[in-house]
Amino acid sequence: MKKKFTFSFGSTVIIQPGIPVIADIIDSPNRVLVVCDTNTEYIARNIIGFQRTPICVLAPGENSKKWDSVETILSAAHKAGLDRDGFFIAVGGGVIGDLTSFAASIYKRGAGLCIVATTLLGMIDASIGGKTGFDLFNLKNIVGTFYPASIVFMPTQTLSTLSEREWKSGMAELIKIAVLDEDDNFLSDLEQEQNPDHESLIEFIERAVQIKGKIIEYDPDETGFKRILLNLGHTFGHALESTAGLGKVSHGEAIAWGLARACVLGQRIGITPPDRAEKILAILQKSGYETGARHPLCSDMNSLLEAMQSDKKKKLNSLRFIVPALKSAVVLSAETIDPDILHSVLDY
Amino acid sequence: MKKKFTFSFGSTVIIQPGIPVIADIIDSPNRVLVVCDTNTEYIARNIIGFQRTPICVLAPGENSKKWDSVETILSAAHKAGLDRDGFFIAVGGGVIGDLTSFAASIYKRGAGLCIVATTLLGMIDASIGGKTGFDLFNLKNIVGTFYPASIVFMPTQTLSTLSEREWKSGMAELIKIAVLDEDDNFLSDLEQEQNPDHESLIEFIERAVQIKGKIIEYDPDETGFKRILLNLGHTFGHALESTAGLGKVSHGEAIAWGLARACVLGQRIGITPPDRAEKILAILQKSGYETGARHPLCSDMNSLLEAMQSDKKKKLNSLRFIVPALKSAVVLSAETIDPDILHSVLDY
Repeated sequence: MKKKFTFSFGSTVIIQPGIPVIADIIDSPNRVLVVCDTNTEYIARNIIGFQRTPICVLAPGENSKKWDSVETILSAAHKAGLDRDGFFIAVGGGVIGDLTSFAASIYKRGAGLCIVATTLLGMIDASIGGKTGFDLFNLKNIVGTFYPASIVFMPTQTLSTLSEREWKSGMAELIKIAVLDEDDNFLSDLEQEQNPDHESLIEFIERAVQIKGKIIEYDPDETGFKRILLNLGHTFGHALESTAGLGKVSHGEAIAWGLARACVLGQRIGITPPDRAEKILAILQKSGYETGARHPLCSDMNSLLEAMQSDKKKKLNSLRFIVPALKSAVVLSAETIDPDILHSVLDY
Repeated sequence: MKKKFTFSFGSTVIIQPGIPVIADIIDSPNRVLVVCDTNTEYIARNIIGFQRTPICVLAPGENSKKWDSVETILSAAHKAGLDRDGFFIAVGGGVIGDLTSFAASIYKRGAGLCIVATTLLGMIDASIGGKTGFDLFNLKNIVGTFYPASIVFMPTQTLSTLSEREWKSGMAELIKIAVLDEDDNFLSDLEQEQNPDHESLIEFIERAVQIKGKIIEYDPDETGFKRILLNLGHTFGHALESTAGLGKVSHGEAIAWGLARACVLGQRIGITPPDRAEKILAILQKSGYETGARHPLCSDMNSLLEAMQSDKKKKLNSLRFIVPALKSAVVLSAETIDPDILHSVLDY
């Protein structure tokens, strides 16, 4: 069964069991470059549907998220003779999506873009909302653009081959979106179905796509006060990723740990109701995430605090913390938080 | 005397005799990075108006228009602690403007941008309309974004120090804009004032800013059929720049030669009235430009034809040629042009 969602920021999301055929995306095969990594190459070759489509295969993982990879994609596009009206088709998870989207956004000042999301994280997080980018100076996504893909395919059959790590990477974002929902039904449903079957998972994805899409429709370029909520867990999570070394901890594991820290912080400053914090922490723990103050990959509080201050999300030289509230979440300026409480959240 | 023009694509252009002070641009000096080259550093240091403003000084010229320079700017911004609400201030001509604008457009997915245009070319061409970018694979601006500066200063006193080459670089764009004007008054005025005094020149700049701004308002991201007219002379001109080697020929010299070729092509296919073609060629020649079929820096027609087909402006695998018409100019697809005529324009 096929579900289709169209958003005002220019993306159409299609959730369907099978991988798309190229004719679903574009009429002329001359105007396409497929980008994938060695893990998704077999899916990409299935998509292509004809012999001579140019393909650019990158090494998988966060370590590929650098300018060299962007230049490799741009070079492949140039060699393929792609024009501004040509299409980049990203086949993969968050890294391939972010790199390909960035390359498409700067190639001849903006070419066509389609994302075929093959991971849970890619479906729930990276492929919707147009955030593109790569890492530089050991900082995540410090370089990037806003460039929503015109078409996003989510072929759910690809989820059957996900590794435990990939699974955990996506689940954290799913839990985060459920926390941001205007009521707690989604969170309660997640609590009840710790090991969702394929059908329930697809339903969860559909709900997450709609909730996230609606948030981005309000605030597509993150200049308002709505989209920043999607960074719930990211102030702590990004600091962990930077401190542990990019690629050492999966994005989802970092975000889950960050979400746990945000719950504890929110509870200690009297914003997150204790039962809501406990509910979220319980879901995270049952999903196998580390929720303790000291993460095994980084027990140095000062490095974490330093990394936070380099995080690209800070504004006007003051950090923002997003913590769960009675419903959804609220944004707090670091200035309003007692440093002792912040320290206690990281090291007690 | 100060003139101010505000355009719907988000730019305010301020033409004034003196260089601006930093307080005209932004309230807090902590949120600024000034980017210049060694030629404009003395102007930048005059702008700054206080001691510790971070400054990034690049080598001048087209050879700096590469990713390494973008990374240098991004690194300086990162070290300066710039945030998304900080401002990049470009002080210089087209190269510094394009590089700084590109860096601002991708830094943390888009930071503030102000351009202080210090060359005639920068004022008339590069600083208005948001085209950013750099060169890759020996192709001009194959990488870039659309990112209009919120404020553009044109301090006309800086024009008194322009070299002959810089002067010629800007005049070609001024003549091009005059050709695109809806009537021939601007062109006739240029014809009559071959050596405009400072006052006349400022008036010409004001007219060009208004004409160019209006064209871009119609079609800010070049998806329509209006903005492409600004590429008059560029199909031939870019091919010359690529063939001669980027940086060997100034942009203006290349565009002037390309505009001359466009006049000859337009006349031979019966679109450009002969007296209009002659008038434009005469203005170009009196301004000291090469207008003959064989340019001294490239007499190899086949290399030119090949370079044209790699030009980023081509669409749907077909080149576009823009030629002066009865008034303004029209866009032609290469398919509609007899190759023998095209060859005769390059080599007779």
